[in-house]
Amino acid sequence: MVIMAASTSSLTFQPILERIAEEIGRTPGRGRPADYIPALAACDPRRFGMAVAELDGSVYGVGDWREPFSTQSITKVFTLALDLAREGDELWEHVGREPSGNPFNSLIQLEYENGIPRNPFINAGALVVTDRLQTRTGDASGELLAFLRAESGNRALDFDKDVAASESAHGDRNAALAHFMASYGNIDNPVPVLLDQYFRQCSVTASCADLALATTFLARHGIRADGTRLLTRSQAKQVNAVMLTCGTYDAAGDFAYRVGLPGKSGVGGGIIAVVPGRCTLCVWSPGLDERGNSVAGVAALDRFTTLTGLSVF
Amino acid sequence: MVIMAASTSSLTFQPILERIAEEIGRTPGRGRPADYIPALAACDPRRFGMAVAELDGSVYGVGDWREPFSTQSITKVFTLALDLAREGDELWEHVGREPSGNPFNSLIQLEYENGIPRNPFINAGALVVTDRLQTRTGDASGELLAFLRAESGNRALDFDKDVAASESAHGDRNAALAHFMASYGNIDNPVPVLLDQYFRQCSVTASCADLALATTFLARHGIRADGTRLLTRSQAKQVNAVMLTCGTYDAAGDFAYRVGLPGKSGVGGGIIAVVPGRCTLCVWSPGLDERGNSVAGVAALDRFTTLTGLSVF
Amino acid sequence: MVIMAASTSSLTFQPILERIAEEIGRTPGRGRPADYIPALAACDPRRFGMAVAELDGSVYGVGDWREPFSTQSITKVFTLALDLAREGDELWEHVGREPSGNPFNSLIQLEYENGIPRNPFINAGALVVTDRLQTRTGDASGELLAFLRAESGNRALDFDKDVAASESAHGDRNAALAHFMASYGNIDNPVPVLLDQYFRQCSVTASCADLALATTFLARHGIRADGTRLLTRSQAKQVNAVMLTCGTYDAAGDFAYRVGLPGKSGVGGGIIAVVPGRCTLCVWSPGLDERGNSVAGVAALDRFTTLTGLSVF
Amino acid sequence: MVIMAASTSSLTFQPILERIAEEIGRTPGRGRPADYIPALAACDPRRFGMAVAELDGSVYGVGDWREPFSTQSITKVFTLALDLAREGDELWEHVGREPSGNPFNSLIQLEYENGIPRNPFINAGALVVTDRLQTRTGDASGELLAFLRAESGNRALDFDKDVAASESAHGDRNAALAHFMASYGNIDNPVPVLLDQYFRQCSVTASCADLALATTFLARHGIRADGTRLLTRSQAKQVNAVMLTCGTYDAAGDFAYRVGLPGKSGVGGGIIAVVPGRCTLCVWSPGLDERGNSVAGVAALDRFTTLTGLSVF
Repeated sequence: MVIMAASTSSLTFQPILERIAEEIGRTPGRGRPADYIPALAACDPRRFGMAVAELDGSVYGVGDWREPFSTQSITKVFTLALDLAREGDELWEHVGREPSGNPFNSLIQLEYENGIPRNPFINAGALVVTDRLQTRTGDASGELLAFLRAESGNRALDFDKDVAASESAHGDRNAALAHFMASYGNIDNPVPVLLDQYFRQCSVTASCADLALATTFLARHGIRADGTRLLTRSQAKQVNAVMLTCGTYDAAGDFAYRVGLPGKSGVGGGIIAVVPGRCTLCVWSPGLDERGNSVAGVAALDRFTTLTGLSVF
Repeated sequence: MVIMAASTSSLTFQPILERIAEEIGRTPGRGRPADYIPALAACDPRRFGMAVAELDGSVYGVGDWREPFSTQSITKVFTLALDLAREGDELWEHVGREPSGNPFNSLIQLEYENGIPRNPFINAGALVVTDRLQTRTGDASGELLAFLRAESGNRALDFDKDVAASESAHGDRNAALAHFMASYGNIDNPVPVLLDQYFRQCSVTASCADLALATTFLARHGIRADGTRLLTRSQAKQVNAVMLTCGTYDAAGDFAYRVGLPGKSGVGGGIIAVVPGRCTLCVWSPGLDERGNSVAGVAALDRFTTLTGLSVF
Repeated sequence: MVIMAASTSSLTFQPILERIAEEIGRTPGRGRPADYIPALAACDPRRFGMAVAELDGSVYGVGDWREPFSTQSITKVFTLALDLAREGDELWEHVGREPSGNPFNSLIQLEYENGIPRNPFINAGALVVTDRLQTRTGDASGELLAFLRAESGNRALDFDKDVAASESAHGDRNAALAHFMASYGNIDNPVPVLLDQYFRQCSVTASCADLALATTFLARHGIRADGTRLLTRSQAKQVNAVMLTCGTYDAAGDFAYRVGLPGKSGVGGGIIAVVPGRCTLCVWSPGLDERGNSVAGVAALDRFTTLTGLSVF
Repeated sequence: MVIMAASTSSLTFQPILERIAEEIGRTPGRGRPADYIPALAACDPRRFGMAVAELDGSVYGVGDWREPFSTQSITKVFTLALDLAREGDELWEHVGREPSGNPFNSLIQLEYENGIPRNPFINAGALVVTDRLQTRTGDASGELLAFLRAESGNRALDFDKDVAASESAHGDRNAALAHFMASYGNIDNPVPVLLDQYFRQCSVTASCADLALATTFLARHGIRADGTRLLTRSQAKQVNAVMLTCGTYDAAGDFAYRVGLPGKSGVGGGIIAVVPGRCTLCVWSPGLDERGNSVAGVAALDRFTTLTGLSVF
């Protein structure tokens, strides 16, 4: 990372977060929570939390930054990193790294490209990554949980069984994607096993503080909280690049344009973002825009990069 | 253009460029020149040049870095900036800023999205931007030429009339795109006028040195060579973001992953890239990969960011 | 044709037509006239005419059956027959004969299938047929006009220059189609020449009586009014088959299901239909459904086949 | 089933069938058997049988006309008729009747049209019809089997359990289709139950004689072999119309053009066809063209309509 604004101390983040929270708080709850499962639909769209974690593990926050929420697609980043760490570039023969240019569930490009999903962050791609991690570990969601607990230091971080059951009950689209890719030979595990693993991952409940800390390995160019290396420097760069170009559904261009940081959102209303070499962020607010990203979350990140100059552009 | 006395920081670039040129030179000419018009097909794929320009206007280079070549789609960046400077955000009602996820000439998404192209760097989007700049100036390609001459300091920089005529003779796809968008009311000028302006822009001939200098306003957050402001800081960030997510046809994800810089390629074999706040690059080598990007050019930029750490990730 | 209901005399048609007209007349004007050009938008949706022509050239009618109207896409049938008569099966290397499964202007399948339109009755296919007839005759629309005059016996039948000019002024979609196919090498003539010929054909004004008579060569298995052969028996069968499967835009299945006859509609509100070996029909009423077919026209043909049993199924 | 004493009209069919068989026999086995399941791949492409059944139940044949083969998609016609008889036009709110214009397994149009398949003969549409018949009867495949036995008079006609198991083992595409439509609310039964029913139907083994007889209710405008009515005259016409426009995958236009009869093919190499008011045909030969239709089968039907004039056009 090149263009870091000079900052002698992490202490400067707290007033910035407070200023952002105040500005966001002045606008009423915007957007609508995801409504396809009851657990998400019940969320109060006025909730708002934001956390910043620095490379040394210090973490700052405002609002509901310690409140656990449903991480949903955010965990796709960690599953990608865990599988990439194990199999390296072979993964990229089974999933692409180009933006999809289509709504996140679309089957069209998948058919056009013979069962190879465009990137690891659309549902089809995340199913492939989960399938491969499952083959290598025998328990993909268990690996994920252990990683998140270790990085966040929060041993209570866990799956939400009700959310997983609810996802499963509404899982026909993901079942269709998995069977479709299986018809091209791009899925190894039985579809029900894969879906079970996948929905468990989506159901992880964690706070802004947890997720900002769990993401710091990407700001540290691949180094985990305990100082060991998960990814090579090049692989960490790759994950950041995929986040920037594909991390926010069909709004990746807009997110890059407004926020200018690698980021990944979930329909639970959370967004993680990385300032390579400097810090990570996690923001949460359940009201979504029509493309599935948190309205207040994107606004808060936009303000953060404007106020600090910490954009990659 | 002035070749500056070496500053402390600039001293380091020359040996890096020479090392890259040596490494690239050891591999034989790879890829194939574009063959849809004779002027491009005749290029020697072994040509290679690379230049770096710093914020103060100093420029360094190796190989054929002073050799003029056909800029092709690279000029889409400058036309975008010139129109954005004039009309601001209204432009984004007529062209999107999301990756296309499809080959660069595709009509499918254009139909699906009612004549609004996905971004300014696919042909359809560049036609819209040119059309709008033409409406505002009466001579879009003349504006472009004046800008490029001023920023590069090269008064001899010019259109290549043979290339423009050749493009026009093979212009049925672009004519189809223009008429198609006109049917949705998203083109103001008569299609023949628009195409003439568009093909002239594509025909600009310039060297790596010229283009690296002409791009520095994006590294300077919007400030032109003469110190005046073309774009606001926010607009400059926007252009860089669109370059990163959409600048290299259907390989934007791969380019971000390997190079990690905002960039824009042309089928003439050139690529420009921006290190915000620090410098710009231009590399040229006519052999293209199957997605239309210079093989040696991408490899050279990849080496540059690896050797210098000057990636945004 | 196999399953002809026994009918000793053509005299039976007149009361059937009158009964249909009476039933249709009881329902108020339904549907909306095409509104993309003024000449069509001005039509009174309550107009209704219907004619039956027998193999011997006798013709019967009700309502506005002698009123000239804008034939629009109906003439595609005659252009197809005229070109097929000249070049035979070679035509089918340049245009398919499968239903399009998409709205009639769609570019998607055209791109997917490399510039070969699905069938001669979508606009892209009709442009190809016109282009080929133009190459063979030097005046495709003149050939068409001469044929229609000869078969109908109406020397006053003519183009409507205002309609042709109006089509041309709204012709961006067709221009896009023509340029797009030209980019695949599937158009021989300059696009402006082709479009001029095409829009003239669309502008032919004729009555139900004229069109029923002009269509009888298809009921006579290829024999013209003067006893000479235009098409082989096999070719006449082919044209009827293409009409049944592709003649009514994206409603061909529905038309076959309800009417059960080869037919071709136009956005002027006309529909021609063929009872092979027995008679032809033409109905006109300007109010269209959302797929571009005359509401009262389809209803009248539906009643006709129900009352007479003269369906092919 | 009774082999009837020759009637005046029926006498003519036997020599025609023999002439066709002789002509077809002179050309070597053409096309390739379906190879996605072993039971089909093992078929000898030189096998050829053809049968004609008249309205009175008399049946004629040549070659392997009494040899049972795998009916595959042919049974979609009978399932459609059985469900249409039960629920009438309500069915058409859940499946369309327009040609698909795409290969028979395509998910693209299904997504574009919100989970409503284009017609009952593509796999997605047949799954919907089976689902609805299952809901109404509790045993869709049992209903089908009982009907086929009754109409053919062949009590030994049955499912092939090995084929059904084989289809199930290669069933990921159909599972994807079913889950995908379920996500739009267009499937009532649990997907595994539906697939089991569906694959059993595909596995029915029957001979040309059996199938020609089982199809005669469509030539008799809805009347079953025992004189009771299954479909109204209008419904029988509807099924014939859907067969003509959608019965042979992406070759319906070509089939109408060459054969000119309502028909339905299966990848087992069988094709049934209807001459409304007169007779039915069934032909079998396992070698398929690239669109999944029997090469010798289409050729034999083409010869039949040419020799007899019994085309609907």
